Amino acid sequence: MTERLSLSAVHDLALNVLTHHGLSEAHAEAIAQVITCAQRDECHSHGVYRLLGCVRSLRQGKVDPLAVPSVRHLSAGVVEVDAHYGYSLLSFQAGLPLLVDKARSQGLAAMAIKRCFHFSALWPEVEAIAAAGLVGIAMNPSHSWVAPEGGSKPVFGTNPLAFAWPRPGGNPFVFDFATSAIARGDIELHARQGLEIPAHWAIDADGQPTTDANAALKGAMQTFGGHKGSALAAMIELLAGALIGDLTSAESMAFDGGVGAAPCHGELVLAFDPKVFLGEEYEQGLQRAEGMFEAITGQGARLPSQRRFEARARSLKSGVEIPKALLEDIRALLD
Amino acid sequence: MTERLSLSAVHDLALNVLTHHGLSEAHAEAIAQVITCAQRDECHSHGVYRLLGCVRSLRQGKVDPLAVPSVRHLSAGVVEVDAHYGYSLLSFQAGLPLLVDKARSQGLAAMAIKRCFHFSALWPEVEAIAAAGLVGIAMNPSHSWVAPEGGSKPVFGTNPLAFAWPRPGGNPFVFDFATSAIARGDIELHARQGLEIPAHWAIDADGQPTTDANAALKGAMQTFGGHKGSALAAMIELLAGALIGDLTSAESMAFDGGVGAAPCHGELVLAFDPKVFLGEEYEQGLQRAEGMFEAITGQGARLPSQRRFEARARSLKSGVEIPKALLEDIRALLD
Repeated sequence: MTERLSLSAVHDLALNVLTHHGLSEAHAEAIAQVITCAQRDECHSHGVYRLLGCVRSLRQGKVDPLAVPSVRHLSAGVVEVDAHYGYSLLSFQAGLPLLVDKARSQGLAAMAIKRCFHFSALWPEVEAIAAAGLVGIAMNPSHSWVAPEGGSKPVFGTNPLAFAWPRPGGNPFVFDFATSAIARGDIELHARQGLEIPAHWAIDADGQPTTDANAALKGAMQTFGGHKGSALAAMIELLAGALIGDLTSAESMAFDGGVGAAPCHGELVLAFDPKVFLGEEYEQGLQRAEGMFEAITGQGARLPSQRRFEARARSLKSGVEIPKALLEDIRALLD
Repeated sequence: MTERLSLSAVHDLALNVLTHHGLSEAHAEAIAQVITCAQRDECHSHGVYRLLGCVRSLRQGKVDPLAVPSVRHLSAGVVEVDAHYGYSLLSFQAGLPLLVDKARSQGLAAMAIKRCFHFSALWPEVEAIAAAGLVGIAMNPSHSWVAPEGGSKPVFGTNPLAFAWPRPGGNPFVFDFATSAIARGDIELHARQGLEIPAHWAIDADGQPTTDANAALKGAMQTFGGHKGSALAAMIELLAGALIGDLTSAESMAFDGGVGAAPCHGELVLAFDPKVFLGEEYEQGLQRAEGMFEAITGQGARLPSQRRFEARARSLKSGVEIPKALLEDIRALLD
């Protein structure tokens, strides 16, 4: 049982729910846009479903619903945005123009978002950078749920890494993945459904590999790709935590104090301007990238995000299908 | 049967072999230093053993042994070094001071090394950046030996990614890994010894997983970590190939023309200055990182490069042991 909604109806529903629960118009608009994008791309866990968790987080009182981000020029190459304990997306929007300006004049630039509450995936952010013709990278710590390779106790967050490369006349090349073996939500889902999990996802509280989802939730998740994924997860703690003067995933977990709110953390965003790097060889550089994409798709392999872009094309044409039960739960938030 | 050599003896041996085979004093010195570092850290495949391959490459005539790198200020944040088809290490050395200056003034900076022949691992380079108190990242394409996830034909190189974080009063936090499941040399070693390889290392020429090392060498290697490692490998082709106007791994393979020389490619090096990002919170930021390292080592897990640093401590004290047969092969290069 689903209901078909236009993308503008999805946006308005999200906006209404968010402002109804006390978010400022600016925060609500930034979040509604990203929720609409996720629903459009059929990333269901990041679409309107997320409104339920968002309202829960707001009720917990950790997030400041009215925080106004402050943007600071830190150096010629670095912009810092203090989210003042609001959600991350408005801070990203607030800092983006300066990040783009700096990247265009310096060749590359960084944006350090500080003291923000996590909201949604990182691909909407790196896609926004690619839409400006720049190459984007984004990463953040989360809560310490993930053990280092060879260890048994959680140190890292799920620590996502996202990347976007602008492509002439089409969707960018984009990836956005957690450095954990799997999303925490997937283990929770297995626990609720009483299903076993694959052995490489997690370890139990004694540090032993487990296929028991509940034991995994009490133990620690593992990184993807063994020691290499573990090294990347550490790099993200360092770059998007220690380097920018914000919390590691372990500190963020302690800061949460058992409330179970969205992780509070920093985020590091990088932008590179191919026009600066390539100069007169700009077109040739973009064509070289296209050649590599063709070598991948030409042999029947997929580019990352390809499914998402196919969903996007469908949704832009004919809207989205949302389960009626979910819509009822969301509309109930307006009472 | 081994022979114990002092580190200065290793250095002098390397320098003599390299100049004897026509490398300029400057190239020979840059390479001898890195070979000595690798031997010191017991990275045997990158130590004096590499002199054999280096001399082979020089005889093939692709590498210019007398190339003089030219350093160019490309923008406030970017330095470009043209290696003019010489080995990479001298170019890295030539560009490093400007990279460090730019990172200190801008907060972050990039060095694009172009038209270089690959030499050695990337950890000596990111460690040099960390020695200047900066955070370093380095990456490069290689030759297209690696298939994208879901594909059957090689597109990517082994595409290493290296990272270093400066630690107060000790060795930096460093990792340096190939985005391929394994080093190509390991498959070659299995083939020579007639051993089977694990199923996730490679596919045969028909795109099927194989445990036959010879079939793997005719097919394609796989990336580490499934679609995530594949995405990273693509990112490295884009950042250290297309973005800086240099060859992708497929183009580098074509450029080699079947000669089997060291890959000719570009390299992207990034440096971040924690003093700019952290300002007055600099000490606190470095201590926060130390806290995370302690959370890893305190539970008995290893930091990346920990074995290498243990070997380094041993070698600095009492030199290195090198197989006599290898030393004979190397000394024969001086005849």
